Amino acid sequence: MKTAVSSQKIVIIGAGNVATQMGKAFYTAGYTILQVYSRSLKPATTLAKKLNATPITDLKKLDQNAALFLVSVKDDAISRVAKQIKIKEQLIVHTSGTVEMNVLKKCSRNFGVFYPLQTFSKEKNVDFDVVPVCIEANNKKSISSLQSLAKSISSNIQQIDSKQRKILHLAAVFACNFTNHMYTIASAILLQHNLSFDLLKPLIAETAEKIKNGDPYKMQTGPAIRKDQKTMNAHLKLLAKDKQLKTIYKLVSDHISS
Amino acid sequence: MKTAVSSQKIVIIGAGNVATQMGKAFYTAGYTILQVYSRSLKPATTLAKKLNATPITDLKKLDQNAALFLVSVKDDAISRVAKQIKIKEQLIVHTSGTVEMNVLKKCSRNFGVFYPLQTFSKEKNVDFDVVPVCIEANNKKSISSLQSLAKSISSNIQQIDSKQRKILHLAAVFACNFTNHMYTIASAILLQHNLSFDLLKPLIAETAEKIKNGDPYKMQTGPAIRKDQKTMNAHLKLLAKDKQLKTIYKLVSDHISS
Repeated sequence: MKTAVSSQKIVIIGAGNVATQMGKAFYTAGYTILQVYSRSLKPATTLAKKLNATPITDLKKLDQNAALFLVSVKDDAISRVAKQIKIKEQLIVHTSGTVEMNVLKKCSRNFGVFYPLQTFSKEKNVDFDVVPVCIEANNKKSISSLQSLAKSISSNIQQIDSKQRKILHLAAVFACNFTNHMYTIASAILLQHNLSFDLLKPLIAETAEKIKNGDPYKMQTGPAIRKDQKTMNAHLKLLAKDKQLKTIYKLVSDHISS
Repeated sequence: MKTAVSSQKIVIIGAGNVATQMGKAFYTAGYTILQVYSRSLKPATTLAKKLNATPITDLKKLDQNAALFLVSVKDDAISRVAKQIKIKEQLIVHTSGTVEMNVLKKCSRNFGVFYPLQTFSKEKNVDFDVVPVCIEANNKKSISSLQSLAKSISSNIQQIDSKQRKILHLAAVFACNFTNHMYTIASAILLQHNLSFDLLKPLIAETAEKIKNGDPYKMQTGPAIRKDQKTMNAHLKLLAKDKQLKTIYKLVSDHISS
């Protein structure tokens, strides 16, 4: 499904987790990465080295030979960065799940969104092939370009508008960010009692595995779904010293039971 | 690592998810399953058929030829069931994460706990080999028997006392039950907006994958850890109609940020 479009040149604006993983994916797919921009030279250089690109810290120095400008900075920085970018015909996209596409409309005649629905760390490489890439653009030509681009790194391309993207991002916060925090809470509870988090790893893997072919609602197990008040009271007693955790335990259990 | 002890005979008391998966695991490991007990004949028969065993609905009819009685009923039924069981020397264990071992002390001279730290469904078979089996018993001989039994189905055997087991179970509620509920919430949000839950599956898989070699605390991503109040406010606005969900969103985000 992957088709390399190696003649196209890309500038990456940003050097965080998403910029790093997407830069690597495009570089591996055969694209030339011209520049990596970051406000600070160090992160720009670190990523630029990996992508055989030039680090820059000034948005006025963007290389206009690029066919695509990929804005992959923190959500609340996109607007500020966009205001400093002036290109003409070339396509500019951001990679955010929450920011409106139109934030880029003054940058270029062709703009859009290229949102990979995944969680990224700088160090852990991602298998992009299965990652849903949610694309949106202000015209058909740009949609077509983004489709080619997305196909070069993923087999799962979705045309998603800004409103749907926000919903997806909200759902992703529950499915990924909050889930990871549940792991963190579990790990902290075990640590307090000198038990290893490794004990929970097969359970965590199976919990994620089960929903691949099933509805999570039907997969629910545990005291709350059984309305086993005795066990839940015992758990609340164990959490007695931590009011915030007790409240989370109660609320989530109530939501499961209801 | 697995050693079959097929000469030993087992009676399974219970016919739910855990009883089903453990029964299958022991049967596959070469044990003879003499009987399956359930209060109702139908579940007893369904499981007994799979294990080539006899279904019973009366605890007075327990086959005393068994070397092991495995009590795998709901946590709040263990005490009631235990009161009806009288055996002599044979080993009796329950499979609960929360119930004290001593609930079985009037059943036999040899008693203990055989707690597989995993989430079980009737239909989905589990790879027991990696499942931590937490064992506890009232004497060394019984611990030794449970070790042999555990080794026949798993390579991950842990000697865990009742107090530690309760902590493990509490942590498992966060890591598994609450995590699965986060999947359910995400799925419901998408469904409300005609978006497919499939879109989140690669994200869920990666979130679980990431903690295999890393500390979940360090893996945290998303608006709460970035203290991105603008995105969190936008999410709360999207959840406006659902007070309970809004409260969960706020509390978990606060806990991540703090």
